[in-house]
Amino acid sequence: MSIITLITDYGLKDHYAGILKGKIFSYLPEINVIDISHTIDKFNVLEASYLLSASYSHFPKGTVHIVGVDASQNADTFHIAMLYDGHYFIGADNGIFGSLINKINPEKIVQINIHDLLINGSGDLDVFAMVATHLAKNGELNVIGTPISSIKKMNVLAPIVDQNSKSIRGNVVYIDDFGNCVTNISKSFIEETANGRNYEIRFSVHSIRNVKNHYSDFKNNTTSALKSMEGNEIAIFNQAGFLEIAIYRSNPARTGSANTLLGLKMQDVVMVEFVE
Amino acid sequence: MSIITLITDYGLKDHYAGILKGKIFSYLPEINVIDISHTIDKFNVLEASYLLSASYSHFPKGTVHIVGVDASQNADTFHIAMLYDGHYFIGADNGIFGSLINKINPEKIVQINIHDLLINGSGDLDVFAMVATHLAKNGELNVIGTPISSIKKMNVLAPIVDQNSKSIRGNVVYIDDFGNCVTNISKSFIEETANGRNYEIRFSVHSIRNVKNHYSDFKNNTTSALKSMEGNEIAIFNQAGFLEIAIYRSNPARTGSANTLLGLKMQDVVMVEFVE
Amino acid sequence: MSIITLITDYGLKDHYAGILKGKIFSYLPEINVIDISHTIDKFNVLEASYLLSASYSHFPKGTVHIVGVDASQNADTFHIAMLYDGHYFIGADNGIFGSLINKINPEKIVQINIHDLLINGSGDLDVFAMVATHLAKNGELNVIGTPISSIKKMNVLAPIVDQNSKSIRGNVVYIDDFGNCVTNISKSFIEETANGRNYEIRFSVHSIRNVKNHYSDFKNNTTSALKSMEGNEIAIFNQAGFLEIAIYRSNPARTGSANTLLGLKMQDVVMVEFVE
Repeated sequence: MSIITLITDYGLKDHYAGILKGKIFSYLPEINVIDISHTIDKFNVLEASYLLSASYSHFPKGTVHIVGVDASQNADTFHIAMLYDGHYFIGADNGIFGSLINKINPEKIVQINIHDLLINGSGDLDVFAMVATHLAKNGELNVIGTPISSIKKMNVLAPIVDQNSKSIRGNVVYIDDFGNCVTNISKSFIEETANGRNYEIRFSVHSIRNVKNHYSDFKNNTTSALKSMEGNEIAIFNQAGFLEIAIYRSNPARTGSANTLLGLKMQDVVMVEFVE
Repeated sequence: MSIITLITDYGLKDHYAGILKGKIFSYLPEINVIDISHTIDKFNVLEASYLLSASYSHFPKGTVHIVGVDASQNADTFHIAMLYDGHYFIGADNGIFGSLINKINPEKIVQINIHDLLINGSGDLDVFAMVATHLAKNGELNVIGTPISSIKKMNVLAPIVDQNSKSIRGNVVYIDDFGNCVTNISKSFIEETANGRNYEIRFSVHSIRNVKNHYSDFKNNTTSALKSMEGNEIAIFNQAGFLEIAIYRSNPARTGSANTLLGLKMQDVVMVEFVE
Repeated sequence: MSIITLITDYGLKDHYAGILKGKIFSYLPEINVIDISHTIDKFNVLEASYLLSASYSHFPKGTVHIVGVDASQNADTFHIAMLYDGHYFIGADNGIFGSLINKINPEKIVQINIHDLLINGSGDLDVFAMVATHLAKNGELNVIGTPISSIKKMNVLAPIVDQNSKSIRGNVVYIDDFGNCVTNISKSFIEETANGRNYEIRFSVHSIRNVKNHYSDFKNNTTSALKSMEGNEIAIFNQAGFLEIAIYRSNPARTGSANTLLGLKMQDVVMVEFVE
């Protein structure tokens, strides 16, 4: 059975995610619809973009990913569908897919043009449901849109290397439910730029020298040794391969988290400084 | 595969929605269960009633809709099941289905009487799961209940036209996750009463003359033109056809929303005043 | 179709629950995955343990239950899988399954040893998805782990009878979304210890003499009689059979709840005192 995933800012109280599923099942009863998140910060394209790039590859090839964030059509923002890395993506051309195409080229992009086929009063949800089920049934992109060659990017998504290759300047692009702050600086980008040099992480008044490769790096410690680390600030490469500033075992509701304790906010600067 | 939808105030932390699904799958393994909302304000029949009426028709005919809000049986509130507009509805006769039957008549209503078949200690969830799976398998309403001819209504749900047909007086019946305030005044009811006259919307100290027909009315503007509208108050007919007071692109967590900025609360009065 | 349930502290904003499902569907496309809760208080093994024990038996035998709370492996905490009461359980050996095995003995427990089969960079989610789908396909526990004979317990989970059998001392182990406080004292444990004696419930400065057997005990009252009870403190045996301190029809967002109005917190003491 094919899979359609959903990343939206529709929230959890309202019926919008539910009726999107109702429309999907009306077109295609045999489908798995999986919620990735409906609580993206309202209209926050940056957050949605990060979650999408960190999630999609964990699903089987052929999965259709709908991104319903700031997705209304207007005079210069169109609905698009894209085949990229064997997965289908549907949303508005508002920069949300920019972080994907920094890496590899999309196989095909179309500007969706089925809006006129829908009855008057239909909205984004109808377009998304119709296109997603068409693609989930192995339908052609050409049938639902006109080929285009490029899409919008967001500048904030690309980390910058300084002139002398002495540092990388990135930004916080996602704050997770544990309060950990994810940057747009990937492990592979640091290693390419490092060329064997050591480095430390700097943000605000803080610096961290020892970047953990994985949360599982802690697995050789005992429970009591780990207990004593609770509340420590750490820098780590997360499962998606991005540098993350975290508080070890933080509980935002009780003890505070990286974003509250260290004062980090969305888009704040995080530097990687190389040591000769 | 048949569909069962859920609207409840069980919340997202507890296990109640999960075990309701466990019971449903125990009775009928081949079924799609779709969450519409589990975060209805506790015991708020008005909110649940609005969400139900705005959602159900987006699902295929034959779908079974469970409403688990203020749904305990007592000496004068019974569990009912209803066939209405080709859909099945299950819940308590507490007024929650009143907004539906204002429009068209139910095809059949029964008072559920299977409670004695269930083992001691069974609760509402068992009743709902058993009735819903029975109906999803095309079972007869007569098998699980006794026919009744009428159900309770909530007065607050019906907007009122004044004696001289100079105005319609309605109420806020739902505040959505974006903070937009939905009224119980439908576009068709305004147009019938208007009889060609113009009108304006009044609430508290505010008045709005220009009611948009749809969020997609904004689609011919450019992104920058729309950006300049952010934070403006607007009146609009939402996708369910009801008059809604909104702040354009509001983010309740950051910039405020219609209910916070304009001071609108559930059940507050909204007037449509006709101009000769 | 087999069922896999999820109890985690991953939260609702992030993609972790979504990608866990993506991995599960990648291994086994024909499966029902049901969310029980993703909003367990971060790292709170006690809460997860209660929800698990109150939920699992409502699912069909053979269901696989994943508990992703404080679930990272380290030098003295391993991943385990267990067959217990006809259900499969997967998680870390951090005490979370202790409340189950107080009642009946597990049929089989294994320490999961497939970690080395996974590619580098795989995490807990990969282990859980691979083991859960193996078990959902009726795979043997022996194939994914080494048999072990015992698992960790949490002391706080067991209520204590005093020397003279005059009282039972228990604790609040879960606070639900309505703000009701669930204790670890079961109805059957009180009745065994009571041996026919009456009893009252005491906590902080409060005492309650009349324990209701079930929320449905209220069903013979009229709506108006029940309305007058709103806001009263009650003691009741919940559907899982545990003593619960509640405010009748509480709405934590508006009128307050047992934990706010009565000042009860997680792990607070609740006494059952017997009267000769």
